[in-house]
Parts: sequence; C-alpha cells; structure tokens
Amino acid sequence: MTDMNLSTANFTVPREEEEEDLFDYFYDKPGSIPGTLNIEENASPSKIVLIDYNESQVIRIPNLTPEACAPYLDTESVSWVDVQGLGSEEILRRLGGVFKLHPLVLEDVVNVPQRPKVEDYEDQLVVICQMVMPKETGEGFYIEQVSFVLGQYYLLTVQEEPLRDCFSPVRDRIRSGKGNIRKSNADYLAYTLLDAIIDGFFPVLEEYGERIEDLEDEVIANPTPQTLEKIYQVKRELLALRRCIWPQRNAINSLIRGDSDLISSEVQVYLRDCYDHTVQVMDIVETYRELASGLMDVYLSSVSNKMNEIMKVLTVISTIFIPLTFVAGVYGMNFEYMPELTWKWGYFATWGVMIAIALGLSAFFWRRGWFKNLSTIQQK
Amino acid sequence: MTDMNLSTANFTVPREEEEEDLFDYFYDKPGSIPGTLNIEENASPSKIVLIDYNESQVIRIPNLTPEACAPYLDTESVSWVDVQGLGSEEILRRLGGVFKLHPLVLEDVVNVPQRPKVEDYEDQLVVICQMVMPKETGEGFYIEQVSFVLGQYYLLTVQEEPLRDCFSPVRDRIRSGKGNIRKSNADYLAYTLLDAIIDGFFPVLEEYGERIEDLEDEVIANPTPQTLEKIYQVKRELLALRRCIWPQRNAINSLIRGDSDLISSEVQVYLRDCYDHTVQVMDIVETYRELASGLMDVYLSSVSNKMNEIMKVLTVISTIFIPLTFVAGVYGMNFEYMPELTWKWGYFATWGVMIAIALGLSAFFWRRGWFKNLSTIQQK
Amino acid sequence: MTDMNLSTANFTVPREEEEEDLFDYFYDKPGSIPGTLNIEENASPSKIVLIDYNESQVIRIPNLTPEACAPYLDTESVSWVDVQGLGSEEILRRLGGVFKLHPLVLEDVVNVPQRPKVEDYEDQLVVICQMVMPKETGEGFYIEQVSFVLGQYYLLTVQEEPLRDCFSPVRDRIRSGKGNIRKSNADYLAYTLLDAIIDGFFPVLEEYGERIEDLEDEVIANPTPQTLEKIYQVKRELLALRRCIWPQRNAINSLIRGDSDLISSEVQVYLRDCYDHTVQVMDIVETYRELASGLMDVYLSSVSNKMNEIMKVLTVISTIFIPLTFVAGVYGMNFEYMPELTWKWGYFATWGVMIAIALGLSAFFWRRGWFKNLSTIQQK
Amino acid sequence: MTDMNLSTANFTVPREEEEEDLFDYFYDKPGSIPGTLNIEENASPSKIVLIDYNESQVIRIPNLTPEACAPYLDTESVSWVDVQGLGSEEILRRLGGVFKLHPLVLEDVVNVPQRPKVEDYEDQLVVICQMVMPKETGEGFYIEQVSFVLGQYYLLTVQEEPLRDCFSPVRDRIRSGKGNIRKSNADYLAYTLLDAIIDGFFPVLEEYGERIEDLEDEVIANPTPQTLEKIYQVKRELLALRRCIWPQRNAINSLIRGDSDLISSEVQVYLRDCYDHTVQVMDIVETYRELASGLMDVYLSSVSNKMNEIMKVLTVISTIFIPLTFVAGVYGMNFEYMPELTWKWGYFATWGVMIAIALGLSAFFWRRGWFKNLSTIQQK
Amino acid sequence: MTDMNLSTANFTVPREEEEEDLFDYFYDKPGSIPGTLNIEENASPSKIVLIDYNESQVIRIPNLTPEACAPYLDTESVSWVDVQGLGSEEILRRLGGVFKLHPLVLEDVVNVPQRPKVEDYEDQLVVICQMVMPKETGEGFYIEQVSFVLGQYYLLTVQEEPLRDCFSPVRDRIRSGKGNIRKSNADYLAYTLLDAIIDGFFPVLEEYGERIEDLEDEVIANPTPQTLEKIYQVKRELLALRRCIWPQRNAINSLIRGDSDLISSEVQVYLRDCYDHTVQVMDIVETYRELASGLMDVYLSSVSNKMNEIMKVLTVISTIFIPLTFVAGVYGMNFEYMPELTWKWGYFATWGVMIAIALGLSAFFWRRGWFKNLSTIQQK
Repeated sequence: MTDMNLSTANFTVPREEEEEDLFDYFYDKPGSIPGTLNIEENASPSKIVLIDYNESQVIRIPNLTPEACAPYLDTESVSWVDVQGLGSEEILRRLGGVFKLHPLVLEDVVNVPQRPKVEDYEDQLVVICQMVMPKETGEGFYIEQVSFVLGQYYLLTVQEEPLRDCFSPVRDRIRSGKGNIRKSNADYLAYTLLDAIIDGFFPVLEEYGERIEDLEDEVIANPTPQTLEKIYQVKRELLALRRCIWPQRNAINSLIRGDSDLISSEVQVYLRDCYDHTVQVMDIVETYRELASGLMDVYLSSVSNKMNEIMKVLTVISTIFIPLTFVAGVYGMNFEYMPELTWKWGYFATWGVMIAIALGLSAFFWRRGWFKNLSTIQQK
Repeated sequence: MTDMNLSTANFTVPREEEEEDLFDYFYDKPGSIPGTLNIEENASPSKIVLIDYNESQVIRIPNLTPEACAPYLDTESVSWVDVQGLGSEEILRRLGGVFKLHPLVLEDVVNVPQRPKVEDYEDQLVVICQMVMPKETGEGFYIEQVSFVLGQYYLLTVQEEPLRDCFSPVRDRIRSGKGNIRKSNADYLAYTLLDAIIDGFFPVLEEYGERIEDLEDEVIANPTPQTLEKIYQVKRELLALRRCIWPQRNAINSLIRGDSDLISSEVQVYLRDCYDHTVQVMDIVETYRELASGLMDVYLSSVSNKMNEIMKVLTVISTIFIPLTFVAGVYGMNFEYMPELTWKWGYFATWGVMIAIALGLSAFFWRRGWFKNLSTIQQK
Repeated sequence: MTDMNLSTANFTVPREEEEEDLFDYFYDKPGSIPGTLNIEENASPSKIVLIDYNESQVIRIPNLTPEACAPYLDTESVSWVDVQGLGSEEILRRLGGVFKLHPLVLEDVVNVPQRPKVEDYEDQLVVICQMVMPKETGEGFYIEQVSFVLGQYYLLTVQEEPLRDCFSPVRDRIRSGKGNIRKSNADYLAYTLLDAIIDGFFPVLEEYGERIEDLEDEVIANPTPQTLEKIYQVKRELLALRRCIWPQRNAINSLIRGDSDLISSEVQVYLRDCYDHTVQVMDIVETYRELASGLMDVYLSSVSNKMNEIMKVLTVISTIFIPLTFVAGVYGMNFEYMPELTWKWGYFATWGVMIAIALGLSAFFWRRGWFKNLSTIQQK
Repeated sequence: MTDMNLSTANFTVPREEEEEDLFDYFYDKPGSIPGTLNIEENASPSKIVLIDYNESQVIRIPNLTPEACAPYLDTESVSWVDVQGLGSEEILRRLGGVFKLHPLVLEDVVNVPQRPKVEDYEDQLVVICQMVMPKETGEGFYIEQVSFVLGQYYLLTVQEEPLRDCFSPVRDRIRSGKGNIRKSNADYLAYTLLDAIIDGFFPVLEEYGERIEDLEDEVIANPTPQTLEKIYQVKRELLALRRCIWPQRNAINSLIRGDSDLISSEVQVYLRDCYDHTVQVMDIVETYRELASGLMDVYLSSVSNKMNEIMKVLTVISTIFIPLTFVAGVYGMNFEYMPELTWKWGYFATWGVMIAIALGLSAFFWRRGWFKNLSTIQQK
Repeated sequence: MTDMNLSTANFTVPREEEEEDLFDYFYDKPGSIPGTLNIEENASPSKIVLIDYNESQVIRIPNLTPEACAPYLDTESVSWVDVQGLGSEEILRRLGGVFKLHPLVLEDVVNVPQRPKVEDYEDQLVVICQMVMPKETGEGFYIEQVSFVLGQYYLLTVQEEPLRDCFSPVRDRIRSGKGNIRKSNADYLAYTLLDAIIDGFFPVLEEYGERIEDLEDEVIANPTPQTLEKIYQVKRELLALRRCIWPQRNAINSLIRGDSDLISSEVQVYLRDCYDHTVQVMDIVETYRELASGLMDVYLSSVSNKMNEIMKVLTVISTIFIPLTFVAGVYGMNFEYMPELTWKWGYFATWGVMIAIALGLSAFFWRRGWFKNLSTIQQK
C-alpha cells in the first residue's frame, strides 16, 4: 500500500548521489591564477606505478617517487608511468616537473573532470579521456577521468582512483607478452589503453538496452508513476553517456588526422579501428535515446488509455443505475392519488421496467464494445 | 474479452527475439587483444564455395579448404570465394592466411555485426555491409552481415548463414551468362552483389508502407492500446533499418569517391546508380519515420477525442436524470403538511414537470450537437 | 448522425488511391540485371511527337517511329522529341538505340518513379524530374516523372501519360514564335520546360495554403475527429511534395554548377532564376509543414479545452443537485420521531433551505466564471 | 457571456487579411514567357522621384518620366531614383530600358514578393529586400518588397507603395547634409537604406517580446481558448518574420563576401555592421519562437491542471454526499419491521452518523490537500 | 489556502524585471546616423580608472579625464584603462578621440547590449563580451556587457556598472604580483579578464543544476502549477544564457584563429584553454536545457497520472454506492402490494444484499489494484 512512498524515497537518495557523478564538471574559481591545482578533500593519495618493458623483459615498480621515474624516460624501453589518485598536490607538482608538463596541462590532469580533448605540445601528446565503469550494484555507472601524456619512449597516465580501471587485461598482456604489445612502442600502448576505455562503454550500454526492453513491456501493459520515473532516469543517464562520448570521438579523430610524429602510421590503422568503435558507441547511445523518447510518448498515451478505461467503468455503472434509481424514486413519492401504486402487479411491473432499462443500456454498451477491455484494467 | 491479454502475450515474446536481431552490435571484451576472433556458439560451421568464371567457362566447387582456393586467386578469370557461416575459427584463420588479410580485417569479418564501412588496403578493398531479408512470417526482417574483400582477380564474400541470402539471381546470371557479368571483372561482380543487397531493402520497406497505411485507418477510426503498440513497433523497426542504411550510404559514397585502382571507371558509373538506390532507401525510411511519428500524435489526439465522447455520454445521462431524481425525492418527503400531495392531479403534474425538464435538457444538448457522434463510439 | 461513418468511408477510399501516387517508388526486383525495363500493365502505349524548329519555321510530326527521328537530330534546327506513355517496351528500346542511351539511363527513364537527378554523359545531359499537377477534383495532386535527355541539337523528353502535362504554353510559344524560344538552342528549350515544371508546383501549394487557413479556423472554433484527419492528411501530402522538390533543387543546382558544354552561359542565368523558384517552393513547403505541425498541437489543446467544458457542465449540475437530493432524502426517512415533519412550515422551510443551497453553489461557480463559456460548447 | 464568439469573430477576419500579407509569394503562371510583368489590379500607379546630390548641392525632382532620369545617371553626383508603386507597366518597361535592366531583373523587381537575394550583373548590383513596418493598429506588420539596382553613380530603388517606407530619416539626412552621406558615393547610400530596412525589424520584434510576456502570465494564471489562439498567432507571425530575415542575411553576407567593384572597402566595414544587426534580428526571432513553443507546452499542462481542479470539486462533493444519500435512502425504506425506526433517538443518531461520515471524508480530503487550490479555480 | 495567489504574484513581478535583463537587445532608431550614441537615462556616470604596471611597479589612478590617459598609452608598461558606467556622452566621445576609435566601435561599446563579437582594426583588436553574475537574492543573474579594445601597450575595457564585475581577483593579482601577470603584456591581461568572464558562468550554472535537481524530485512526487511555472522559468533563463555564450564561443574562436600581431603565440595557448571552458559552458547549458525539456514531458505525464488517481477515487465511491442507493430506493417505493416489505427478516436480508454488493465491488477493485496508490494522492 505504501510502495510508492517507498519507491519515491528510494529514488531520491541514490539519484542525488549519482548526480554528482554523471553531470559533474570542474571549474576554476572565477579569477583564479591559471595553473592552480584543485585538490579535493576526499581524493585518494597519489601513488605512482612504473612498468618498463621491451621485447625481452618487464620491470614493475609499484611505488615510486616522481624523481625516481626520470632515468627510465629516455631509455628506449617503453615506460608506462601510471599515477593513481589525485590527492597529493606536492607529488603531482613534482611529477609535472619531471615530465616538463605545461602548467595548463597539469591543471587539466588534476582538476577533474575536464572535457575530453587532444593537445599537441612539441614533444608530447596530451589526451584527456573519460572512462565509464558499471557500478557494482548493477545499475548505473561511474565516470572517471584518465589523462594520457605520450612521449617518445614513455606514457604517463593519470587516474582518479587507484583500484577502479579497465586496464588489468592490458597489464596481463604486458606481463605475459601475448599479442604485439611487447614488440611495439609507447604509441601502441596508448592505443591499447584507449581501446580498453572505449570498449568499456559497451557493457554499460548493454545494461541500458535491457532496461529499455523491460520498460517497453511495462509501458504498454501497466504504466505506473514508477515507470515514468524509470524512463526519465534512463534518458538522463544516456544523456550523461552522450556527453562523455561525443568529445571523445572528436579527440580520437584529431589523433588520426593529426600529424604528430609520436604516432606511427601503423598505430594509426589501429586507431581508426578504435574510432570505428567510438562511432558505434555514439550510434547506440543515440538509438537508445530515440527509443527512450519514443517510450515517453507511449507512456503518455498509455496513461490516457487507462483513464479512458476508468471513465468507462464509471460511465457504465452510472448510466445504468441512475435511471433505475429515478424510477424507484418516482414510486417512492407520497401523492395521495397515484394509480400505479394500487395495481396488484404494479410492483412487479416496475421491476420489469427496471430490468428492461438495465438490459437495454447494457446491450447498448456491449455493442459499442465497452465491456471488452474492462477485465484488463489491472495493476500488479 | 481477453484479447488484450493475449495480444500482450503475443507481443512480448516475438519482440524480445527480434530485439536480438535488430539492435544487436558486437563488442570486444574490454582489454582483449586486437584481432581476437569471437566465435558464437550457435554459429553455423563455415563452408567455402568457389565460383571461377570467365567469358567462356564457369567452374563451381561447392566445398573447398581455404588452401585449395589459392591457385585460383591469381589467374585472370574471376574467382568468387563465398564463405558461408562463421562457426569454424580454424578455417577462418587459414582463410585469413591465404588471402593475406590484416588481423583487424579478419576481426571485422568474423565478429559480427560491425558498422558498414569501406577500408582501402594496398591491393585489397574491404567492404562491410548489412543485408536485410523479410522474415518468412511476413512481419519484420533479419539483418545479416556480408563482408567483401575485393582483389584484382578475386572477390571474397563472407556471410553469417549458409542459406539466407539474396544472391541466387546473381549466381543464375553467372551460370547462364546473361547480362555483362561473364564479360566483366571482379569489381563488376562486387557491384552486382552490392546492388542486390541494396535492392533487398525495398521489399522490406514495402511491408512497412502497408503497415503504416493500415495504422492510418485504425488510428482515427478506432484507436486501441494495440494500435499504440503497433505504431511503436513500426517506429522501432524503422529505426533499426535506418541504423543499417545510413553507414551503408557513406560506405558506397566513399567507394565512388575513392581512387582505388581496383574499381574501374566503368563500374563506378554502375556504383553511382547503386548509390542513388541507397539514397532512395534512406529517403523512404525517413519518410516512413515521419509518418509514424505523425501517427503517434494523431493517436494521442484520438484517444482524447474518445474520452470526450465517453464523458459526453456520462454527462448527458447524469445531467438529465439527476434533476429528475431530485424532484421525485422532494415528493417522497414525509412532511405532514405538503399541499401538493393532496392535489388530485399532483402526481400527473409532477410527471409533466419531469418530462418538461428532460426534454428541455435534451434540447439543450441536442442543439450543442452532443448527440451527433454518440452512435460512433464503437470498438470492433 | 452518421456523418462520421460516412466521412471515414470517404476518407479511406481516396487516400489509398492517392497513396499509390504520393509515396510511390520504383525498385528493381533484387538481383535483376541492370538495364531491365519494367513495363507496367496499365501503362499508356508510347507515342512519339516531334517538333523541329528554328527561327524561320516549325515542323510538327505527331506520330513517328523512333528511327524516323534520327535524321532530325543532327541538323542545326532544334528537335524536340516528346515521348508520351511508357507502355511499349519495343519502341522504348529502339528509341534508346537511336539516341544511343546508356542502358542505365534508359532504365531510369522507363522504370518510374526515380529520384530527381542530373547525370552528365559525354555528349548528353540527363535530367530526371517530378512534375506535379492539381487533380481535377480540386483536392490533392498527381506526381508524374518527366525525363530530359539534352543533346547539342535535340531534346528528348519522356512522360508517363500522353495528356497530363504543363507544357502546352511552351508548345504555343514555339508555334507562335513569342519570346526568345525560336531564336534559342535546345538548352533554352530544356530550361523553358524545367521552368514550367517548377512553376507548376505553385498552384498546388496555393491549395494547401487555403486548406491550412480553413483548418486554423476549424481547429480552435470547433475541433472534431474529422479536423484531425484533415490535418494529418495535409501533413502527409506536404511530406510527399517535399520529397519531390528537395532532390529537384539539388539537381538544378548541379546543372548550374556543372560545366557541361551543352548549357550556354546565357541559359545558366535563366537556370539561376529557375533555381530561385525551386528554393521558394521548398521554402513554402517547409513553412506550411511547420504551420501544420503547429495545428496538431493546437488541436490537442483544443480537445482538452473542450473536455474541460464538458466536465464543467457535469460538475455544476452534479454539485448543485447532489446536496439537494440528500436533503430530500433525509425528510423521506420513516423514523417515528422526526420533529421537523410535524412542523407546519417544515415543508416550506425545507424548500427554502434547498433554494438557498442551490443559489449559494451557483454563486460559487458564477464567481469562478464556470458559466462563462458554457454557451459556446457547440458543434456544427 | 458571448466573448468567445466575439473573439473568434475578431480573430477570423483580420487574420485572413493578414494571411495575404504574411505568407504571400509571387509565382508565374506555369509556362509563361520569362520576363512577363504581372501588374496587380489594385497596385498604386508608379511615380518616379529623383534626388541628385553631391557634397555641395541637392536637387529633388518629385515626378519624372523614366527618360528624364537618363542624363543624371552618368554624372559623378549621386542620383537616387526612387520608384514608388508598381501599377504602371509602361513606365516600368521604359525604366528598364533607361537602366538597361536584364529582363529577369525587371521581372523580379515588378512581380512581388520575391525571395531576398543579391545578383551581380556586369556593371550593376541588384538587391531584393523585404521591409517590415508595424501596422497602425499596433498589432502585426506589413511586409513590402524594396529592390535596389546599384550602378557606379546611381541607385535605383523600387517600392510597392508610395507612402509606406522607413526612408524618411535618410531623406532628411541628405537634405540637411548630416553625417557622411553627402560626402559619400552611391554605395554608401545603398548601405544607409539597407541599414534602415534592417533596423526597421526591431520595433516589430519589440511588440512580439511584449506579447510573449503577456502570454507567459496568462498561460499559467488563467489559460483560456483565446490564449491558445494568441500563442498560435504569435508563432505564425514569427514564422513569417523568419521567412523574411533568413534569406536577407544570406543576401547581405554575399554582398560582403562578393568582390563587386561597386562596393568600396570602406562601405564593406559598414555593411559588416549591418550584417551583425541582421544576425541579431534572426537571433531574437529564433529566441522568441522557442519561447512561444515552450508556451504551447505550458498551455497544455495548464489546461490539464485545470481539469484536475474541476475533477477534484466533483469528486469531493460526490464522494461526501453519495454515502449520506445512501444512509437517508436506507431509512426511507418501508419495511414493516425496521427496529431503528421506532427508537426514540433513531433520527438524531442517524444525523450523527451522517455528520461523522461527512467530517471523516472531509478530513481525508483535507489531509490530502485537495482543498488547497479550490479557491484559485477562477477565470476572469 | 492562498499560496497560489501569492506565488503568482511573486512570480509576475520579478520576472518582468528580469525580462529587461535577460532578453534585452539594443537597436538604433531606424534610419539614425551610424555612430549615434544612445545614453540611457538611468545609466551610471562614466568614471575612468587607470592601472599602469610593469614587472617592477604598479600605478593606480582612480579618476582621470580621458586626455590624462594619453601619455600612458604609448609607454612600454601595460596600461589598463577601465571605464565604468555609460552615462556621460561627452567623456565617452573624448575617450573615442584619445583612443582613435572607429565611430562604429564607439557605437558598439556604448549602445549596449550588442552581440558578442571580435573585430580586427589595423592596430586595435575589439572584443565585445557579455558577463553574467549571480543576483544577490540567489536566484537568477545579471547580464552586463564588457568591451575590450586591445592595443600594443594598453587595454581599454568598458563596463556598464561601476561596482558589479568579476575582475577583483585580477586587480589583486596585479597589485600583489602573483602569477605571470606583471611579467606579461597587455594581451595576457586581456586573456586574464576574458577567462574571468567565462569562469563567471559556472557559479550561475551550478545554481541551475540544483534547481533542476529539485524540480526532478518535485515533478514526480507532487506536481503543482507552481512546478510548471518553475520549469518554464528555468528553460527561459537557460535560453538567455545560451544566447550569451554561443556568440562568445565564436568570438573567442576567431581570436585563436585570427592572425592579429597583437596576440602572442604564448597567449594563444592560454586562449585555447579559455575556449575549452567556453565549450564546456555551452555543453552544460545544452545538457540542462535537454533535462528541462524532459521535465516538461514528465510533468504532463505526472499530471495525467494524478488525474487518473482522482478519477479512481470518484469511480470507486460512485460505483459502490450507486447500486446500494438503488436497492434502498426500491424498498422505499410505496406500492400497496410489495411482499418483501412484510417479511419478518426483509430489512435484514436487504442489508445483507447491500453488504454483499459492496464487498463484491470492493473485491473487484481491490484485485485490479485500484486501492494501491490511493494513500499517495497527497499534496504538501
């Protein structure tokens, strides 16, 4: 009996929490100095992991100081410096020094979330990306920024959280030497990680495909206020996904079209494949958004249909009984001279008249088909 | 009486099944190695059919190993290698070896469905297409991927299913030597197959044209919840068709604009014709989508109209009888001193008053035209 | 009383017939040989009319064989070969031979309707157009394909029907020698005919302007289900017009931009004028479509307004009489001890109470303005 | 009581008249000779006014023959030939001869209204414009075509009506010598007039801003069918404004981008300013159109809200009195053995029960807040 | 009870006031001389503040005449001339003389608001911007024009109001020498101020994010007419924000793409960052607009849902009691011969029948779930 109250309650709390995730954006305090780093209070402390590999060997150092990375950067082996957590301003600044990052780049990397983009500095290529991961609860997703700084022999990646990423299969491939990764340069590593990020959108999208399917059944068979809520929720989250993927497409496209020396022509072929996947993600997001919008229209029509059925019940009952009650009222009058009252069969004749009226009206409604769907006005 | 229940049941089951077909998309497990082949469990085993022809003769070998194709590929006669079924990873890999396919091409060919596209490799042109075929039941359609790899003297085509395709007329033309096909090169064969795929959209579209026409009649004359369901269904399937044909247009356009040596200028003239057909398909799909969207608006208005009619019935009946019942109630009061009750013609006078009221109100409604459409509130 | 039934009947039959006309499109049987001609059963037999003219003289030969045209084609006088009717395959094929048409061109000319387009062959310019003509009944229009093949000294036009076209004023001008037409070349003749086709859209559009105006009045004053039907009908037919004119614009534009030697720079100035008219047609079609869409919204709101009025009638009547009936009911009770019943003025006092209640409630509704629009709930 | 009837009447008549103005367009009779002049019956007779000026002197000749203009055209002083009224075919043709106008230009100038455009002839620049002027009644606006033919030393302008234009301030400036106009060439004069035309849109737009503001208040506080009418009207007229200003923007843009020698680089700076104003007009028109569309949605929701309130009144009254009437009915039954009837306090106990029911139900509705807005269901 | 009245009142007054701010635009009186300055009556008197600085020192002169600025302009130190208030025509004209402003530039600077734009004069770069600031009341925002004239060693800024701006942090940074500002040229100062303006949009946007979140809860749980009002208000103000930011994006883009010598390549890198922020603002505005539009649909559906619930209450009550009242009416009839009336248990049997009917109907509705949500029809 109170399920709606409950559901409204359930609805409000998680949504507000998600809100922070889905439509978040970073902005400088107006007038602040360019290059200011904004460290959030609850940010995880920064941890640096180095993986240095070439075809013959792999070194993994789980916890370095920024300065300790420096010697690896200029050797010909590929050095992947992965920074996890944005909580330690000092470490991040020292990192900026070691990698000679432009102050604006460091700002974009640390002050998350930024819009995905590619920037081409002389001997560095900076890529800002958004990664999505399904929530553990099975509904909704996290959005997290990953920044890439690609040099000739190194790749610096910066993530918001230490544990949540979709790069473990790549780490496994480096360790085991499967595929081409160990034989390739840092640009191939960057492609592999980008590809993992884009492929990470698909499991999230799959969930929305299923939710839309469920809603399609629900919206026609049994539209409730909760259905409306769910449709709106789906539209809202798809809008958030769309906001993530559109600039990513532009970014990857400008990687392919760009003429940076840091990306070999061989890796560009792979990036084109990655671009195709991005377009496919966009395609699916737009398709789902159209389906969800269509559902909203169907919902409104369904609710109107339901009201029609309710009105029919009321109309049938009222229309049949109101004339009968009138007849009964007539013979309840107290006039001294009412001939029918003294007739022997008057009472039974009146019953006859009333039954005839009732049957006649019922037949009228029956022929118009108003009884057809009465049995289906049902709500689980 | 239970037809809605039935229809809802009918609705749910086939739709979910279709869902798989219409909005399906392939995606790599995030982080998987580029070039991984994904063999579905229920995929048909791969079968290779070779047709090798020139102007004077035709050879057809129904079941080859990949390696057995090799000698035909470099001879000047046109070799059409048609692979049907994607179930045998080993055969597909060996095929990739024989045709020297780039690992990403093999992946796109096998991991279906991909987005339609054209890719230009040095001495090969790769075209990914979606083919649609009407279902045997007469409602809805299958979508199936066909991939083309065009070399100078050969054409490799890869299909998902061994039996379902629209290429039989082409095979007949090769066998019988009708038209130019036996006198032409592999690029003309590729055009002929592409053209057959595009022309295959038309019979499917024709069905939607008819369904929309039926819905146009239904939506105004007699809108039911099932009508809503059908409109949504049509919109949904047209969206799926649109998703197929848009990238196909881009692909064919890039074939025409491309400057690959593999396509002769003569065949480009034919491809332009094929492009025109593709544009026409898109045109029809968009037109139908607009019509279907318009139907949704009409539906909502029709339902509101129907509610108006129901309300009119209720209002007419209530408004006429409620005052009458009141009059009867008045003379049912038990006051000791009610002069009218003792009048001789009181009872009949009361009837007169009541009839006058009923006639007056009926005339009021009649002049406002409320009885006009009452006879049409009907539902088959 | 049965006008809706009638109108629905009227509606269904002509619309289905129109359907064929408005959204028709030609498609090859999938897999058929390029160049196949598709002769419809009910097509008119083909008739060839030749008009050959220069500044000094005009020859008109009403019924030729294709071969009889040949000698006129290469003389410097302008030869207009007008083929009316697409029913005779053999004549059309022979014509293709005489004019050396590419098989795809002959196909486009015969297999109607095609999408409007311009194709540039070496010494021929092919233009496919759609011509619209208002129906004799005054509502709706026919769409008919006209194909132009322009050579240096000749113009071949192919029409679907022998009688229906908008070229008679042009024929008159050739005969009478008015304007520049007799002094100009074949390209000017082609322009003149194209211009006549484009100008033929305007009378059709004018009809829609009037229908929309009528609907604007109807939709607010008195929305009925028929109004809805008419709005939908107008939207539908405007969509068909739009489908005709858009590709025509592209075609004429490519004529202007093209660098075919067959179009002199002088005629290009005239074509630019023709292009301006095409843009104006599109402009009007889009404007009308927006107006029609707006009308749909207004319709829905108007229906809701009407329901409000109906509900007000019901509410006013019910709310006034239900309490009165209750009062009467109270004094109809049979309790042995009901002091009011024995009062002398009890009956009249009760009447007083009831009148007071009725007046009070009426005043309540009056002040809220509910009686204001009651007199306008009217339906012609 | 009859205000709606009145307002519908008021509505229909002026709108139809406006219709002619707002969505009018000229078209040739299909097949007519290019260059045909179409003189409307009620067109004002043509009058030619010449203003010839240089820095030192101004000559104004109020009524000339076309031929009398000829000597002024080639002198270095700027000659503004202003033709007012399109009623005299012969004068217009002679004018065409004096100015050596291309027949198509003369056609565009005379057969109004045409789409705004710029055409570049060898030594003439032709600009077709639409000028809007607020109606004297304060609601709505006129649209009138102004054509410019700019030569090196002269400017020919052609207007539809002799009195209605927005050029008087320019004439004053020429007479008084204020600003740069007397020191500048004919191109500056053309700019000044164009600028006056564009600036003339703003007062018209301002009126719509106010009407939208009024509607915003009306639509939420008290939506009536007249509100709907007004919203539709505003949308319709904004659509007409949009149709005027869009091609004007393109025209002015092509003036700036064009490389005609007739426009000096100095005047191009001024034209850029004029272009900015045009963009601003478009911007405001689009903003107003979006606001008006939003209002339509709000209207529909408001009407539904109002229906909710009406339904609440009905439901509250019915739900309270129906059970009471039932109780009264029970004790109106005539059974011989009904113990309650003989109880001494039966009658009063029944009253008690009825009051308790009424209070209970009222409390139910009160707590649900249904009485909250009852006092606001009000209509002025 | 009167809260709606109150809220409508609250609504009207501030909105009209805002109207002036949000959708205001300046336009010349049609036909006025280019370069006319339009001084508003209530404009603040103009005050000139000079800040002249280089790396070693800062001079600030709070109140200068225009001519007193002249000596500072050509020295190598950066001179920021900040004009606050547009009320003094004479001062502004003298300023135009000192800075050698083109008359059209002076016009754009003074006649506010103009559309944001960039204009490149030989040795000056003119940028027109709109700045937004949250209102002190916490709801809504002000829009104010800021114009920049950038020379080699100076920057002239002109603002509408002396106190309201977002430049104080920049002034502090100049005074304190933090960041690069004291070491950089006038172009860096211009960037810093532009960046402060763009960053000023974010706090305003944040407020709308919160309002939309609140509305999302309100619209499903408890939609009232005030909710509708608020949604419309949000849509309206977002439209105003959009109108501000779109042309700003174009302006900043043309600054980056432009090849003015006044902007060093180093500052262009910073401007690109500023451009990214502008794109992000647009992105958020569009996202919020889509959410608000979605809310409108949800609102309409929610209102319909609510009506369904109201109708259910009415239908349940009516449908249960109308038959009971009929039964009571039957035994209130006064026929002489009605056998049931004399039965001993007749009265009690009738009660039994009535209770059975009531329970039966209640069970019917219960099983259909109509009682489910009754307890939630609640309005705070």
